[in-house]
Amino acid sequence: MAALTNAIPEKTVERLSEYRRTLLACHKQGISHIFSHVLAGIHGITAVQVRRDLMLIGFSSDTKKGYDVQVLINYISNILDSPTPMNVAVLGMGHLGQAITKYFNSKGLKLRITTAFDVDPQKVGHEIDGIPCFHMDQFEKAVEERDISIVVVSSPTNVALDLVVPIINAGIRGVLNFTSTPLNFPQGIIVENYDITTLLEKVAYFVKESDSNNS
Amino acid sequence: MAALTNAIPEKTVERLSEYRRTLLACHKQGISHIFSHVLAGIHGITAVQVRRDLMLIGFSSDTKKGYDVQVLINYISNILDSPTPMNVAVLGMGHLGQAITKYFNSKGLKLRITTAFDVDPQKVGHEIDGIPCFHMDQFEKAVEERDISIVVVSSPTNVALDLVVPIINAGIRGVLNFTSTPLNFPQGIIVENYDITTLLEKVAYFVKESDSNNS
Repeated sequence: MAALTNAIPEKTVERLSEYRRTLLACHKQGISHIFSHVLAGIHGITAVQVRRDLMLIGFSSDTKKGYDVQVLINYISNILDSPTPMNVAVLGMGHLGQAITKYFNSKGLKLRITTAFDVDPQKVGHEIDGIPCFHMDQFEKAVEERDISIVVVSSPTNVALDLVVPIINAGIRGVLNFTSTPLNFPQGIIVENYDITTLLEKVAYFVKESDSNNS
Repeated sequence: MAALTNAIPEKTVERLSEYRRTLLACHKQGISHIFSHVLAGIHGITAVQVRRDLMLIGFSSDTKKGYDVQVLINYISNILDSPTPMNVAVLGMGHLGQAITKYFNSKGLKLRITTAFDVDPQKVGHEIDGIPCFHMDQFEKAVEERDISIVVVSSPTNVALDLVVPIINAGIRGVLNFTSTPLNFPQGIIVENYDITTLLEKVAYFVKESDSNNS
């Protein structure tokens, strides 16, 4: 991920996104205030970390009852969300693409997956999980017409590299790549390569290490 | 993730897993050697980072032709993989669970998803994507019989918390949680909470910041 002036560190952005999700769940349950150590406990981190993250975004209105949940949600949203909503497209509407679309659009977030692309004639021209599916041939045109700024790459791994040039040409600004092929883009395009395999291999490694520490 | 004596840092483990995937792809294409700067370029990092990671695991047999691909694959596998294969179960065989299972088991890795759990009568007792699906009622028994040490939680978010006690009781050693509810476990159980929403919100944030840097 490219370094940007004044931007908040990646890990803090991740945690802010996570705090907000917890706060939204609290709000739904009618909880109006939360202590930093409670928020920290839910996320398995220290209260110092929570306070440091919030200090970094200039939030400090801790009260005797803890943070005001609604105020903190709004504060984080102002930091994370774009003032104009961003549209997201999924490239590859297979199982992973469909799972991501359903999962994401069910959350009622500002960020929405609005468009799918595929090459399968059974999918192209149809609506899947509530969003229209276009042929990759129409990528550039559809991106412009539908004002898409971010794409999720959930195509088969062996075609992922073929998507790089169309993504650049269409003026896409951010890429979340779930395939096993790491994708590189010119400066100015934000890319996050995330292979699920890595996560599972990581958990397995630490289980193995934990075993050998205990034996 | 718990700190373990002598364990390699998390980020290095992630990169080793990624390097190995790239090396396996190279091997498949008949490439026998690779330079550190080429490996670095594919992953969008510096050659110094690659060499530092490999130094950390004690690998230094760089030749004039670069690293021997097969030797490096074996070296990384010795570090990452458990000597006895670990079985993985998926809790929640919805779209995400099925996508993860298909995706993961198609890769021919040592780590394999061997079992699914669900409560849906249409799924329980059947084979889905080549693996049997058990009812959650049978979780503890099936984990023991099928020698499962890691679980992937892909259940609906609102039932994720109900899975914590069964996971602990069944003696599970590692948890990869994809729901929006962060799960906490006692020391000794490795947990990685990974909500896809976070990744997408992170990309969106950096796109927004990049826009405001350019305007």
